[in-house]
Amino acid sequence: MKIKYDLLKEEKNTSARNGLLCTNHGTYKTPMFMPVGTLANVKMLTPEEVKACNSAIILSNTYHLWLRPGEDIVAKAGGLHKFMNYDGPILTDSGGFQVFSLAKKKDILEEGVKFKNHLNGDSLFLTPELSIQIQNKLDSDIAMSFDECPPFPVTHDYMEQSVDRTLRWAKRGQNVHQNVNQSLFGIVQGGEFKDLRKYSAVETVKMNFDGYSIGGTSVGEDKKTMYEMIDNSVPYLPKNKPRYLMGVGDPIDILEGVTRGIDMFDCVLPTRIARHGNAFTRSGKINLKNAKYKEDFTPIEEECDCYTCSHYTKAYIRHLITSNEALGGRLLSIHNIRFLIKLTEDIREHIEADTLLEYKEEFIKNYTKKQ
Amino acid sequence: MKIKYDLLKEEKNTSARNGLLCTNHGTYKTPMFMPVGTLANVKMLTPEEVKACNSAIILSNTYHLWLRPGEDIVAKAGGLHKFMNYDGPILTDSGGFQVFSLAKKKDILEEGVKFKNHLNGDSLFLTPELSIQIQNKLDSDIAMSFDECPPFPVTHDYMEQSVDRTLRWAKRGQNVHQNVNQSLFGIVQGGEFKDLRKYSAVETVKMNFDGYSIGGTSVGEDKKTMYEMIDNSVPYLPKNKPRYLMGVGDPIDILEGVTRGIDMFDCVLPTRIARHGNAFTRSGKINLKNAKYKEDFTPIEEECDCYTCSHYTKAYIRHLITSNEALGGRLLSIHNIRFLIKLTEDIREHIEADTLLEYKEEFIKNYTKKQ
Repeated sequence: MKIKYDLLKEEKNTSARNGLLCTNHGTYKTPMFMPVGTLANVKMLTPEEVKACNSAIILSNTYHLWLRPGEDIVAKAGGLHKFMNYDGPILTDSGGFQVFSLAKKKDILEEGVKFKNHLNGDSLFLTPELSIQIQNKLDSDIAMSFDECPPFPVTHDYMEQSVDRTLRWAKRGQNVHQNVNQSLFGIVQGGEFKDLRKYSAVETVKMNFDGYSIGGTSVGEDKKTMYEMIDNSVPYLPKNKPRYLMGVGDPIDILEGVTRGIDMFDCVLPTRIARHGNAFTRSGKINLKNAKYKEDFTPIEEECDCYTCSHYTKAYIRHLITSNEALGGRLLSIHNIRFLIKLTEDIREHIEADTLLEYKEEFIKNYTKKQ
Repeated sequence: MKIKYDLLKEEKNTSARNGLLCTNHGTYKTPMFMPVGTLANVKMLTPEEVKACNSAIILSNTYHLWLRPGEDIVAKAGGLHKFMNYDGPILTDSGGFQVFSLAKKKDILEEGVKFKNHLNGDSLFLTPELSIQIQNKLDSDIAMSFDECPPFPVTHDYMEQSVDRTLRWAKRGQNVHQNVNQSLFGIVQGGEFKDLRKYSAVETVKMNFDGYSIGGTSVGEDKKTMYEMIDNSVPYLPKNKPRYLMGVGDPIDILEGVTRGIDMFDCVLPTRIARHGNAFTRSGKINLKNAKYKEDFTPIEEECDCYTCSHYTKAYIRHLITSNEALGGRLLSIHNIRFLIKLTEDIREHIEADTLLEYKEEFIKNYTKKQ
């Protein structure tokens, strides 16, 4: 069965919307934040811990799993859910962004992308067909089309060619997609060019994907440009399909995305900053390495319901982080994931009550005030 | 309240014994294996995970906590239990072994040991009094006397002086020990010299500690010598006090120790080898990096009741380990700790049934057979 999106409620004052995403692994509310488990695990965490954060979909990565352990081993295990023992829904990224971000040299051809394995330098060739075939084998709930993710900035001329190529690649991927239990999303590109965002969205929607994502917004542009890119993509996407803003996980960006009509977000941010000692709080990001937490025997956030905040103090987590004990990053990962998921829970409540703008304003005020 | 040891049963054919250790944080069966949590955490694991392995006492370390975060911060947190949120019993090592093993240069004086901080090279001076005072503040259930742990081999003459110094240090530590809820153990040293082991044991016992440990057996000698050192120490220890063999966690060594009358063991082995991809099994240690586990979709041990074995396959753990994903070491740590604790559970059953020798022979046969 493919996923099914039910639009439940459109907020009065913004483009935000509450929805239900029905998958083969449960039905979940949107807007949602999806934790990233690149290599078939959300770094340091068990599936139970991720679920305890009230997470729904988690992400995994075609490029990384293609290299290690290889899609055939995952298929032999019975697919990615069985392999990693996660019975919630999984979305696999296509590898397009990883080719762009990890490979130092790459050769973008009509057929696909030639590049070097970031682990051992071996020559690799990833095509739209291969990406989809790998994802078919991984048996994720949602597969992504293989797209070109150009750097920022490029000329309008280059971006136009790139958008056309991504459209052709999307079609080729769709043509070989065979897993009837897997949904396939198209990706809107077009950089900061309004006309190309519109063109990409309109043409991608013509192919009738199960959902649409907006790509290339988090690769170097300023925030204002990012929000404009969303504004110039969302209006051309159908209301009855989920909309996914790729690679975005900053709390303020999630709020800005939701008010612009986005349903799904993913980002490595909560787990990556955790490993460096950072924690999200309602009053901004804090770094536990800071000496002021040495004797702070309170949780990261008194009101937080996560495992970390209900069991440990800042002083203890600071001790773990400054002593390079991995448990520190693990505990902060749990808190940060829960923080973003709780944010989406609050957002959904305020969409329901048509009070999202007030909530957003208040959140941003607290989050950005000098402490 | 100090700990209390009840001898429940002496095995017929060996010196093994079943006992009950009553602590301020629960009553537990001996023989027991104690996981090591050097820096106020068993590496990568939460207290709940350690407890789920049916663990009892965990170890922590005076030297490490003295440096980070400092005993005063732990004391302000309400003691080590509260600081790390562990409500089971905790034993703190005195730092004597760490000074020996971590400091490249050290100056052993009558007053104490001058050495360099292994983190930043600062000059440090640890004395028997300071070690006990730190442990008093940490508020562990069991503190260890500060001892000299000489390298192997040293001359009989040096070892004799060292044993006498350790005896004087034990007395000095005892004199300043003030925490009425904390028990204090003496440590038998003497290297491979039978007369000095006996001398050290007899003199230490005269000081009437709450328990006795046998130190310096795991620092470079062959196994036969290690077992002889136990044989030459245990007979001089009282039956009504617990006996603790320090730093020993190899499964065969645990069996050899138990049959010689040891009640308590600790070792970093299960967690350290885990981080390098190794798992204990009844048929010997295996390394999950081995290519033969690539498509092995069975647990590490079918009959194991640990979280790891009931949720994950060798192929998945191999993938995590070879991809440097920390979850791999975490899952193997859980299995390895549970393996050693289950071993002590089996041992206790066979002590009860007077069948320990047969069990030991069978275990060693399986554990050492070529696969």
